[in-house]
Amino acid sequence: MSFHDLHHGDRPLLLPNAWDFASGAALVKAGFPAVGTTSLGVAAAAGKTDAAGDTRDETVALARVLSRLPVPVTVDIEGGFSTRVADVAELVTELASFGIAGINLEDGRADGTLAPLDHQTTVIAAVKRAAPQVFLNARTDTFWLGDPDRDETLRRARAFADAGADGIFVPGIVDDADLRAVLVAAEVPLNVLFMPGKTEYERLARLGVHRVSTGSLLFRKALQAAVVTALGVTGESGDHPALSYGDVQGLVRD
Amino acid sequence: MSFHDLHHGDRPLLLPNAWDFASGAALVKAGFPAVGTTSLGVAAAAGKTDAAGDTRDETVALARVLSRLPVPVTVDIEGGFSTRVADVAELVTELASFGIAGINLEDGRADGTLAPLDHQTTVIAAVKRAAPQVFLNARTDTFWLGDPDRDETLRRARAFADAGADGIFVPGIVDDADLRAVLVAAEVPLNVLFMPGKTEYERLARLGVHRVSTGSLLFRKALQAAVVTALGVTGESGDHPALSYGDVQGLVRD
Repeated sequence: MSFHDLHHGDRPLLLPNAWDFASGAALVKAGFPAVGTTSLGVAAAAGKTDAAGDTRDETVALARVLSRLPVPVTVDIEGGFSTRVADVAELVTELASFGIAGINLEDGRADGTLAPLDHQTTVIAAVKRAAPQVFLNARTDTFWLGDPDRDETLRRARAFADAGADGIFVPGIVDDADLRAVLVAAEVPLNVLFMPGKTEYERLARLGVHRVSTGSLLFRKALQAAVVTALGVTGESGDHPALSYGDVQGLVRD
Repeated sequence: MSFHDLHHGDRPLLLPNAWDFASGAALVKAGFPAVGTTSLGVAAAAGKTDAAGDTRDETVALARVLSRLPVPVTVDIEGGFSTRVADVAELVTELASFGIAGINLEDGRADGTLAPLDHQTTVIAAVKRAAPQVFLNARTDTFWLGDPDRDETLRRARAFADAGADGIFVPGIVDDADLRAVLVAAEVPLNVLFMPGKTEYERLARLGVHRVSTGSLLFRKALQAAVVTALGVTGESGDHPALSYGDVQGLVRD
């Protein structure tokens, strides 16, 4: 089934996010029909900070090796690792050249602001012209950075779809009312971030969400399992706490 | 405490093995006084086969980033990624140049045979001349490849120590009698691989083993946790089996 078609099944596409070849291959082996990547995982694995626009090389290298997997692969390219439109289009063209099926392109910037809407729609349109076959999942950080802003989310969802985005991703969106509003406004599939205890898969399915992704959760659970296992060798308590996004960023900065 | 001194504490040094910067940093944050690397993890993360001599670049890149950690780091260099003695010495010199405290150098070869003893002792002596400050943990695969061979283990342990090895590593050794014999024969610290249910830390401690490492276990548990977490999103059973060494090698070969 094509990556586009996977967004129109009876239930939301559950898209797990890998950070290296082994995690991607293990998820495929477990039966997932497609895999994404997690920029936090890619950055932290390399000892770099996430969402700082600093992992273009690592992202391309990972995409290249994941393209060997027998399922569609979609790659988190943060904001495209450049504010120049042509650079982002060139990056996606490169990813398309070795068979990457999709990308996530976000409007959140390293300084915590959102890219201007007209800049972001220009980038989206340019990427779609350069690589029309690549599923462009346009992420807006209207709920992720600062105070949630439903009106701005609806405005961006419409504008991104008009510019050619194949899907809209709103990490941090949780409430039924917000989800329904975005589902109505966006004329393309909606991707929601799975957050344990906040965005249950069954509720998202009932609402008609098209894709549920795991973000950095699998990476953070993997790290926790490694530490718990290591502590367990000497019989210490296995109660090592889960790592938050901030904890992982802290590992790199310490 | 120096990496050498960590081998002479009241209890065996528990050395957890990382495969990327994040896993190394998380283990340091959890309190481990030193970290190693796992060649299986490094290879599988890059989509390559372990123990095939094919991950020199990835190993050096990982060593470089792990050298930022505030604890001693020891690097698994398989057999040195070359049969040329000078190449191996040059590799370890490079690792030493950015502060790596130790290496594992194994005599097992990709074809399942052991390197000739005189070749291996020549390599060990050359590495120690080139980088005397680096703790050289000489691994013999007499228990790991083929049928366990206690006599050959004792012969190699003595010869490696005579050639300048700072420690001996015998992965796959389990029984008290075998462990006692190697502890007597080797005049340098003994490293044993932790295998759940087979080489309990407390027993190894009572026998006087100096170092217990986790090999690929943490990496495999991390992969398992990622898959279990992903399957759990839709409420599927979390009973995904543990991944064996062969399972992980299979991920790369599929």
